[in-house]
Amino acid sequence: MSEDFIKHITKRSSDFSRWYTDVIKKAELADYSPMKGMMVIRPYGYEIWELIQRNLDKMFKATGHKNAYFPLFIPESFLKKEAEHVEGFAPEVAWISEGGSEKLEERLAVRPTSEAIICSMYSKWITSWRDLPVLINQWANVVRWEKVTRPFLRTTEFLWQEGHTVHATAEEAQIETIKILNIYKTFVEEYLAIPIISGLKSENEKFAGAERTYAIEALMPDGKALQAGTSHNLGQNFSKAFNIRFENKNQKLEFGWQTSWGVSTRLIGALIMVHGDDSGLILPPKIAPIQTVIVPISRGNWKETVLPEAVKIKDELEKNGIRTFLDDRDTYTPGWKFSEWEMRGVPVRIEIGPKDMEKNQVVIVNRINRKKHFVKSDSIIDNLKELLNEIQTELFNKAKSFRDSNTRSCITLDELTEIISTDKGFVKTGWCGDAKCEAEVKERVSATIRVITEKDDSRLNKCVVCGKPAESTVIFAKSY
Amino acid sequence: MSEDFIKHITKRSSDFSRWYTDVIKKAELADYSPMKGMMVIRPYGYEIWELIQRNLDKMFKATGHKNAYFPLFIPESFLKKEAEHVEGFAPEVAWISEGGSEKLEERLAVRPTSEAIICSMYSKWITSWRDLPVLINQWANVVRWEKVTRPFLRTTEFLWQEGHTVHATAEEAQIETIKILNIYKTFVEEYLAIPIISGLKSENEKFAGAERTYAIEALMPDGKALQAGTSHNLGQNFSKAFNIRFENKNQKLEFGWQTSWGVSTRLIGALIMVHGDDSGLILPPKIAPIQTVIVPISRGNWKETVLPEAVKIKDELEKNGIRTFLDDRDTYTPGWKFSEWEMRGVPVRIEIGPKDMEKNQVVIVNRINRKKHFVKSDSIIDNLKELLNEIQTELFNKAKSFRDSNTRSCITLDELTEIISTDKGFVKTGWCGDAKCEAEVKERVSATIRVITEKDDSRLNKCVVCGKPAESTVIFAKSY
Repeated sequence: MSEDFIKHITKRSSDFSRWYTDVIKKAELADYSPMKGMMVIRPYGYEIWELIQRNLDKMFKATGHKNAYFPLFIPESFLKKEAEHVEGFAPEVAWISEGGSEKLEERLAVRPTSEAIICSMYSKWITSWRDLPVLINQWANVVRWEKVTRPFLRTTEFLWQEGHTVHATAEEAQIETIKILNIYKTFVEEYLAIPIISGLKSENEKFAGAERTYAIEALMPDGKALQAGTSHNLGQNFSKAFNIRFENKNQKLEFGWQTSWGVSTRLIGALIMVHGDDSGLILPPKIAPIQTVIVPISRGNWKETVLPEAVKIKDELEKNGIRTFLDDRDTYTPGWKFSEWEMRGVPVRIEIGPKDMEKNQVVIVNRINRKKHFVKSDSIIDNLKELLNEIQTELFNKAKSFRDSNTRSCITLDELTEIISTDKGFVKTGWCGDAKCEAEVKERVSATIRVITEKDDSRLNKCVVCGKPAESTVIFAKSY
Repeated sequence: MSEDFIKHITKRSSDFSRWYTDVIKKAELADYSPMKGMMVIRPYGYEIWELIQRNLDKMFKATGHKNAYFPLFIPESFLKKEAEHVEGFAPEVAWISEGGSEKLEERLAVRPTSEAIICSMYSKWITSWRDLPVLINQWANVVRWEKVTRPFLRTTEFLWQEGHTVHATAEEAQIETIKILNIYKTFVEEYLAIPIISGLKSENEKFAGAERTYAIEALMPDGKALQAGTSHNLGQNFSKAFNIRFENKNQKLEFGWQTSWGVSTRLIGALIMVHGDDSGLILPPKIAPIQTVIVPISRGNWKETVLPEAVKIKDELEKNGIRTFLDDRDTYTPGWKFSEWEMRGVPVRIEIGPKDMEKNQVVIVNRINRKKHFVKSDSIIDNLKELLNEIQTELFNKAKSFRDSNTRSCITLDELTEIISTDKGFVKTGWCGDAKCEAEVKERVSATIRVITEKDDSRLNKCVVCGKPAESTVIFAKSY
């Protein structure tokens, strides 16, 4: 009866941008809300976020971090304490000016990020070297008043985690900054199966108020870069603005050394873009809310014969820690269910019908290539575990080979212009370190320095713009 | 060197209200922020919230609920769609009137609760009986502009979960309302060790926009009631206001039947008040971030002798799923640590010194009564598990016997006045059902009907105020 429910999505190969929004809506990851730029994260999308949270949170806790919760509102005067910080964020702030029926004396910012409020608390809590390091993380919502928005990638409100740490020395703060950068890289590569380049941001691209910003960057299939996480060494900028001082072991007062770092629901946007295909989503098994969907072939008296076997398999899979959904609805045909769950990106499908039961087997289908495997009932678990691992690895390898073949080196500005205008992707080149040369590239092809990376190619020894000796090797790209 | 760090708290028996705020600050559960009425939940307090979340979330998921996330802001016009709802909440709303540097055309409410925004989405998502039930929960922050605030109990911003469900029939919605009420009761009694009375609220005390509100209520040691959770049957009030309609199995359009329900960080306030003593917090083991603290007796070369044994015990405890902290700081004495961890409510302390090592034993101390047990090293785990269970049970029993001995029946308004003015506690009495009689009690002794409860005492067959036949038996109390 319900074949007309089959959900049409634009082909990824014909219109990447429409495919992206189609998939989000039809796979029920998110929906638009009545407020411009604010999305609703639906249960299927939120389950991905829960898996991201659970796994990242473990990594934070294993490295000594604890969670806390700070207020949503920040007095305007606090936001203004660090000059660069307010300059960077003020244009994006949503302001509270009335509470209950009273006009407020001072406007309150809805947090765009929490440095200001957290630092004001740290200045109360920290007095001695014995109080350090402070290693606190917060899972929270933040609001930035964006003009152009896209679900998951740039929304007026988003969910994220923000770490805020204080250390006794500059060196410890730097170690923390890099430790977190590496956690982000490991997590995104191992769980989301997205290859990462990481490195320092240029002065121009760094966080408002930071001493140094490091980022992880991923390449999207349309050749644009996506900043997927940042880790900032704040130096003493905020500790001086907020008077965070401690007595060191020599009984001298010193300002603390700080870091802050975050990843957000934007990671889900990256996940969708990197792995999907014309039929919809493909989710890496480690982060898929449903790792295996079981579709019973509904013929004849299937509810008495096939269904009980399907239930048995489901229980067995769940006992083995495999996230499983048994689609036993009788209002849809098996064919409809196949395309529905392919569109929703479930990495493995198990089909079981009367003939399979006779042969004591099931059919296991790989979402990436739709290859079918006939598997004896007593070896489903082993086969499935292996296949899930294979899919995880293959998704990473596919994304990596795309990234590698779309990373090009160049020496002249004309070459850079040519590549960015035609193939896009990452462009590796030399840079003198002057913001003017960086601006020249942005002006000409709207590409920015994504990260400063290792010098590993002696041909890139001159600045791509001015020809002066290159201070560093950088990756230019257009970006989200 | 650090004895002067010992933290002084007001005695619970001498000033309950100051004890409460002292404990919160000194145990580092929470702190005041620069914004009036907004608190910071510090890591130790937040760990309690994480344990509440983890366990409740499991219970919600086991009953088929999924999490999602809806926008923080709600257009004023949406809030106004359900008349009673806006009337109830408008006076408490924080309003956004500027975003970025623009004045907004329509003010946005920072959600005080999410019915309005969630119902507007449900009206898009729900078209057929096949879409029902919708069983969605959200973990989020909400803002209510309160005039008088107390940490955890009543704050301008708080964390909570809010469930929002839609059903095909009135009966199913009622079943859901009661199912959740029972989950709340079970959770609060089994995990927080707080005895609960549950029941229907009077018209006057129900949620703005609900058909019926049910609540769980707990008695605090100062004789005041605390509403610890609510479950609302919304009937079709919101579905009519937001046009949530579905085609039923007979192809007729019908409005959905809804519920909503929530508990918040207020539960932590209840936890603190119910179990603490003059020395500080006492946390029920099931919800204690640290279930056992190990304090090595630091004499002589303890770092070479006692400490390695303490580490071994810690590893063993953690392997057995016991949340353990080894306090190996050398900047504090054992005595200081004992009172620190008692104040912070850790249910069990393990002491180990050189003499204990000789005897192949440790000392295990119960936080409730400070009784010491000498336990052989090879039976620590069994002893500990038993003791943690005992403490969990004893805390519940203590609270229950306090609650029971402070629940009194009465027949006349003079009796009621007398009890509420002297002993406080729960007062059980007959009520005719007229809001005027309810208002008369509030006027006279500032007590309200906490819940309508079972009729189990035939002497309470008349209204305590007007003497007319009692429609129901109710519990009056002063409340937080």
